[in-house]
Parts: sequence; structure tokens; C-alpha cells
Amino acid sequence: MSEQENLQMIKQFWQAFDTLDFDAAGALLHDDYLGEWPQSGERIRGRANFVTINKLYPDHWHVTIIRLIATGDQVVSEVKLEHKDELVFAISFFEFKDSKIFRETDYWPEPYEPPAWRAQWVEQ
Amino acid sequence: MSEQENLQMIKQFWQAFDTLDFDAAGALLHDDYLGEWPQSGERIRGRANFVTINKLYPDHWHVTIIRLIATGDQVVSEVKLEHKDELVFAISFFEFKDSKIFRETDYWPEPYEPPAWRAQWVEQ
Repeated sequence: MSEQENLQMIKQFWQAFDTLDFDAAGALLHDDYLGEWPQSGERIRGRANFVTINKLYPDHWHVTIIRLIATGDQVVSEVKLEHKDELVFAISFFEFKDSKIFRETDYWPEPYEPPAWRAQWVEQ
Repeated sequence: MSEQENLQMIKQFWQAFDTLDFDAAGALLHDDYLGEWPQSGERIRGRANFVTINKLYPDHWHVTIIRLIATGDQVVSEVKLEHKDELVFAISFFEFKDSKIFRETDYWPEPYEPPAWRAQWVEQ
């Protein structure tokens, strides 16, 4: 697929999350899909596990894409997830094979209070 | 600069962090550098603030580059930071201008315990 087609697939992927349509998201995955969550050391292997975990996931997060970067067979997405008063970011590295999402590595950085020690050198 | 030169500059940048040489890292920045830390809502404007904050930052983190992606005037880095028994990841989006680092957005996702509810659908 072209970089533009890869970008389009990731837009569809996040759109499916936003509407809780995890079967639609799962349909974009390669049969040999592997997802990695380095923060917890977990790996999700295959479409069935991916769909099950996402259907069971607590809360409905509203998705806003901040930035997408495509090069070759890779896309990186920077996304904002919001649920009621909560905010979390998602940074995802995707790799494509056979016109499907083949590998995905996700990070979920959370907001924190800016520390006082550096306040004089930053803007809020 | 070419994508290869941008990649090379980001390798130098992280090498400077690894050796605590923040003047060397600062020398890679554009005069109108702006760094953004979305998790804390902080912005670091200009080389002097960047260098000061990094010199004051507690702990010496050892840097390992996991992945670098370059396209056009952008680079994304996925990095592992280790200090004694602590581990944190850094995901950074860089934009270049005039052969310098012009914009940088950083996320610092931290490790967490995998929750029990999804244990049967993941590998550790």
C-alpha cells in the first residue's frame, strides 16, 4: 500500500475506536497481528484477542487525532483520548504487511502536575 | 537537511543526553526552539531554558534508542531511559528548520502492572 493508504487505514482504525466498533478495527488487522504494550510488558496476538480485550475495556474514550506520520510501511499516530473529565494520550507505531496492520506498539502517557522546581523556565 | 541527516542529528541529541552534555544537545537547537510536554502542559522556549532545565533535572538516565522514524522534516524517536532500577520510555516528535531542531514534543510513558482482567488474552 502507499503511505497515503496506510494513513487512511489508521484514520479508519481510530474512527472505529471512537465508535466502539472493534470488529471494524479488527478487520484491518493482519491474521498474524501482534500488538505490544511496552509499559505493562503485554503482547496481544491475533485478531480475536485484540477484539475481545477492546470490547471488555472499561470506559468509552473519545478519540482525537493530533498527528499522523507515514513513511514506507510504517505510520506513527499521536492521539488524545478523553472520557468524562479524564484525558490520556496514545502514541502508536504501526507496521503494515499485505495491506493490513501487522505490528502495533502502543504507549499511554498520562497527564501529571508540572513540578515546581522548573516553573521559572517554562510556560504553562 | 536530508532524512538521513535528520536521523543523525537525533542520534547525536540522545547521545548528548546519555553523557549529560546538555550544552552539546542545546547546540543542535534552532534559536527559535520550542519544546512541548503535553502531559504537564509545559512549554520550553529557547536554548537557554532547555539547557538549564536539563542540567537541573534529577538523576542520570541512561538512553537506549529503540526506534527512529524519519520523513520529510520530521523524526520520531522511541527511547528507553533507565536509572538504577527505574525504567521510563520517551516518545519524541521532532521538526527541523535551518538544519536545526525547531520543534519537539515529548511524552514520558511509565511502566505499570498489567491488570488481571485481561490476563487470559495477552502474553507477558
